[in-house]
Formats: sequence, C-alpha cells, structure tokens
Amino acid sequence: MSVNIGIDDLPIRDELRGKSPYGAPQLDVPVRLNTNENPYPLPEPLVERIAERVREAARTLNRYPDRDAVELRTELAAYLTRTTGHQVGTANVWAANGSNEVIQQLLQTFAGPGRLAIGFEPSYSMHGLIARGTGTGWISGPRNDDFTIDVAAATAAIAAHRPDVVFITSPNNPTGTAVEAETVLALYEAAQAAKPSLVVVDEAYVEFSHRPSLLSLIEGRPHLVVSRTMSKAFGAAGLRLGYLAAHPAVVDAVQLVRLPYHLSAVTQATALAALEHTDTLLGYVEQLKTERDRLVTELRALGYEVTESDANFVQFGRFTGEGAAHAVWRKILDRGVLVRDNGVPGWLRVTAGTPRENDAFLDAVRALKKEQT
Amino acid sequence: MSVNIGIDDLPIRDELRGKSPYGAPQLDVPVRLNTNENPYPLPEPLVERIAERVREAARTLNRYPDRDAVELRTELAAYLTRTTGHQVGTANVWAANGSNEVIQQLLQTFAGPGRLAIGFEPSYSMHGLIARGTGTGWISGPRNDDFTIDVAAATAAIAAHRPDVVFITSPNNPTGTAVEAETVLALYEAAQAAKPSLVVVDEAYVEFSHRPSLLSLIEGRPHLVVSRTMSKAFGAAGLRLGYLAAHPAVVDAVQLVRLPYHLSAVTQATALAALEHTDTLLGYVEQLKTERDRLVTELRALGYEVTESDANFVQFGRFTGEGAAHAVWRKILDRGVLVRDNGVPGWLRVTAGTPRENDAFLDAVRALKKEQT
Repeated sequence: MSVNIGIDDLPIRDELRGKSPYGAPQLDVPVRLNTNENPYPLPEPLVERIAERVREAARTLNRYPDRDAVELRTELAAYLTRTTGHQVGTANVWAANGSNEVIQQLLQTFAGPGRLAIGFEPSYSMHGLIARGTGTGWISGPRNDDFTIDVAAATAAIAAHRPDVVFITSPNNPTGTAVEAETVLALYEAAQAAKPSLVVVDEAYVEFSHRPSLLSLIEGRPHLVVSRTMSKAFGAAGLRLGYLAAHPAVVDAVQLVRLPYHLSAVTQATALAALEHTDTLLGYVEQLKTERDRLVTELRALGYEVTESDANFVQFGRFTGEGAAHAVWRKILDRGVLVRDNGVPGWLRVTAGTPRENDAFLDAVRALKKEQT
Repeated sequence: MSVNIGIDDLPIRDELRGKSPYGAPQLDVPVRLNTNENPYPLPEPLVERIAERVREAARTLNRYPDRDAVELRTELAAYLTRTTGHQVGTANVWAANGSNEVIQQLLQTFAGPGRLAIGFEPSYSMHGLIARGTGTGWISGPRNDDFTIDVAAATAAIAAHRPDVVFITSPNNPTGTAVEAETVLALYEAAQAAKPSLVVVDEAYVEFSHRPSLLSLIEGRPHLVVSRTMSKAFGAAGLRLGYLAAHPAVVDAVQLVRLPYHLSAVTQATALAALEHTDTLLGYVEQLKTERDRLVTELRALGYEVTESDANFVQFGRFTGEGAAHAVWRKILDRGVLVRDNGVPGWLRVTAGTPRENDAFLDAVRALKKEQT
C-alpha cells in the first residue's frame, strides 16, 4: 500500500476538504464526564435478559430482521404513552440506529440538496453536520445571552430564510436549556407561514427535565416531529437506538429513504429487553436529576455562572479571555476528570455522574478556585 | 390524529413523490427462496458465544461503543487476508450497518449533489436507490444479453458521463454473473482517465464464487474499494454488518460523513463472535455452492435457460410475453415456494436453500412444466 496518499488526494466532495470527523476526544482518565453518558451500568437482571433475548434472536440471525421493527415500535409507543400521558401508537413511531440516523433520514426526506435547515446555536452540533452530510444548506439561528431562544429573532430568521427543516433542541445540548411549549408553537407557526416546513423537536435529554415532554404538540400538527434516544435515560449509549414520534404520514415518508433492514435483529432484541426494565432505569434518572441539581448548586456556591439545566449535564463558566475555557478544561483534566469543551466561548459542560464522580469533579474545580485566590 | 394526511401532503423532496419504499414482499410461506438469505441457522455453539459476548458488552452499554470499531476491523482484516491471500490491515477496513450503509457513506463522501454514479444494470437496485437518497445523479449503464459487462460499451459510457463513482457488482445480483479482473481494470482505467473516480466492487456474494475475490486489485489503486457483507456467507442477514477494504485514505475519508458511534456495541460483539466461527460457516458455504450448481443443472435439464451463477442464487427463464415471468412467480408461490421477481423482463431468481427447500422448488417448477405439456 502506498502510504503517502491522504484524504485530500482523493476525489472527495469539496465541502469535506480540510474537515475532521466529529467526535469527543476519548481519553483514558478515571472520571469521564464529557459525553453525557449515563454513569450507571445496566442492572444485572437486565444484562441477563439482554443475553436471553439476543440468544433467541441469534437463532434466526440468518434471516433478515423485521424491516419495520413493529414489536419494538409498539413498545416504544407504549413507553411514550405511559410517560407523557399522550396516546401514541405504533404507526406514530419510527426507530433507527441512534437519533443521528433518525435525523439523517428526516433530512434526506424533507431537506437535502437545494433545501435548507436551521438550528439555534449553540446546540447539538450534529444537526448541522448531518445537514452537511445530506447536502442540506445550514442556517445558524440566534439565541439569547442566557441561551434561551429569542422568539422574535428566531421567527424573523425563519421568515427570512424559509428553511425546510427547523431544529429545536429541548433540553438543549450543550446548554441544558429547556424550551417552552409556547416557543415551539410560535416557531412552528412561523415555519408553516414561511413555507410548509418540518419542525423537529430533539428531546434526547427530556427524561431529565423539570418540565413535561413537548410530545403532545404533535397532535394536529403533521409537520411536527419529536426525536428521542435510549442512549441517555435508558443508559444505553452503546445500543444506538433513536426514535421519533410524529404523524403516521411522516413515518411512512422516511421509509422512502431508510436503508432496508437498517435496524439489526440484535439491536431490536436488546432494545426490547431494556424497555422491559423501564422502571428501574427511570429510577437512575431520578438519582441523576438530584445529582445534576447538586452540581448546579455547588458550582454556583463556588462562584461560577451556571446555565439552568433540564438535562443530565451542566454548563458552567464564564471563563473570560481567549482560550480561557480550554485552559480550565485542561486543568480539570490534570486532576483526572474529563469534562467537555464544546467550543462555546467562555463555557464548559460537565455530565452528571455518580455521586463519587461528581465529588471528584467538584474537588477539582474547588482546587482550581483556591489556586486562583 | 388526523388520518386523512398521506405522504404526498407532506413537504417531502420532489424526487420522492409517488415512490414506494424498497423491499421484497415478506410473505409467510413454507419455503422462502426470495432474498438470498443463507438457509442454515447459526450453529448452537455460535449462538451461545453471541449471547456470551453480548452479555459482556451489555455490562458497559451505558457507555458509547468503540467509535472506530478497531477490534472488529482487525478481525475482518484477518479474515480477508486468510481467505484471499492478500495482506489486509485494520487501516484498510471500515465497517457499518450493512453494506448499504457502507455504500451510503461512500456516496456521501465521493458523490452526492451535483455528482454522478453509474452502475451496469440489471444489478443490485440499492446502488441506484442510495444514489437517489444521497442526491447523487444515477446513470444506468449497459450489459450484454448474457448479463456480462460489455467492456467497450461500459468504458464508452464512463467516458461520456464522467461519473464520480462506478459500481461493479461481482458476482452480480440478480444475475449471478462474476466479473473478470480484466474488466474491472479496464473500467478502473477508463474511470481514472475520465475523471479521478471511485470504483466500488460490490462483492456481497463473493464467497460463493467459482473465482477468487478481486480484493488484491486494491493494491496500488487508491480509488478502488471492495465492499463485503456478513449477511450471506456468514449467515447473518439479521446482524446488518457490511464492510469495505480499500486504501487507508478511503477509510479516513468516510469518517468525515459517518454518523459518530454508528456501529452499536451489540453489533460489534455479535460480529466478533461470528468471526470466531468462520470455518464452520464457510463449510455451509461449500454446501450451498453444491446446491447452487445442482439448481443450475436441474433447471437446464428441465429446459430452462439459466444464467451462469457465482452466487448463492440462480437466475432462470426465459419467460416470454408481457407479465409472463410474474405469472410463473405466482404459480410457484401457489405451490408454497417464494422466489423473486426482480423486474428483469423474462427472468426470475431463486435463492439456493437447503436440499429439502431446493427439492420443493424443483418439484414446483417440474409440475409447472408438466402443466404446460
């Protein structure tokens, strides 16, 4: 193999030239609070149940999986109905390999070449990256200084750009900010007035919120989609199971672009096992909410500015001056705790871990504060 | 939910309007020889090993999977090296959820909006469908009447259209036709002369071929990619594990568009377990090759025209007259055997099943022949 050929010697698309793959640095440190993972391993009875269901699925692994994942979608619908109080059926739900694939399928169907998507940044950066990967133009919409969505500015941006897809992340990543139902409705109306656009509410972290899900808003709004994931509340980041709830026509539409048999039989079996243990897993969510609130309180007591958080992570700052946030990130890492520098100037993000992990993080920032005084 | 809203009432992309999702009809019949699945269930020791490795993976399922799937790529590289005699390393291999996702990532990187891909049809129809899904223009290139590639016509088509990606399927689906190395080289040269293009050799069925893999052609050809799958030879259609071998720069390049953590921890664990049992699984492949050859011989003895097959399926015909092939498909189905009508005028495709399944199929076509006489 000739080794002196690199990416830029290949006939890749122009907009990919000079770019780097997305991904948090994966460093081997004692305390990893950088990727919003759930710190609680799955309980052993669930591990056994996964092994059991996968063993069963493996016995027919020579056959293609259920292309429509009907059993899984039915159980996801039941979970949504039970936890939101809003009646959701199998036909309202679609599942894919992580919410990233859900979003990719939505953009392939409703956006793509010659079309535009908008997000209000800082937000989940994959929205823009998947837009690029699907040939969709990307508009970076504004936020207020406190990271809430500025409704007037957002609706003006929608009216000006007439995007085909509007992303609203609630709770927002990396800031933790929940979005009011009234804001979603205002943006939905603006998006419909500008053009019949799809509005995607990304609720990856909603189980950690103080506020109810926005799911019931899909009622009577066929262009509103709520996306979810099992990565966070279900403690299953390694499973890659994302899903959406919407009008059945949206579910039908994404099937025009989904890769056939996209969701493996082992993924379906594992997700179904996890859904059998929902109550235990939501118990961990309650513990994490308490820990998240403790992080907010303690960081404020230390004199940090902390963004209100409805997620399993906390954004703290402000670190003023060029490279100041990254310098603090580095110093926390030197003490064995990995947090995330998302590139939001002046801010860092820490995931709520176990009480012991959060103590280690708080000890590290306390020590930093002492150094400075 | 309003039920009177359909796909076409949604703001989907224009080119998706009126389209149907890809997928073979899934009918509940005694003998299913329609989707080129491997008829042999995984051996029980492998089923147990999968349960064991997935149990282990489930214990850290709260964490994201290895984003780069290094262990899996290393084992896939070892498998390729061992079975082709060509030295392949971890850096040459990339894996995704089915070869469909591999192809999608290649098209997102090397084709997409404003770019073109070509395939020689009839061939695997997903190449063109994934092109559409990624905004890539699609050129349907020619074949000879015997379904081999007409090198002069193919190189002329490449010179005329200057595609960015060229698909060569060997063995070809649905015809079973293997492609000569000389043909691949001629098309590669033509593609490089027209434009530096990526040439993708889809070897999904190569383990069933009479001829060696074309893998060694990647040596010194950084624009040549070989794609593979564990769906067929490994009897793992339900697993959704596709992979490619190419110059390391190609592997680096697709990481610019791959969704982060696209390959779940359970998928990686299951694939690694299957790779431990390669010898047993390749034993089933030998049985299927014998059965495939028997189908060819018996169908010819019955007076059918049969395309030379290097795959685990056989194309037979010709059925002349409008709708004739479909009428035969229906009559075979009436006898409890599901084969595939791929829409190739005059031809049907039957997957090589177990000896008993193939007997059932041969009995059905024998009965049909009798009816006609």
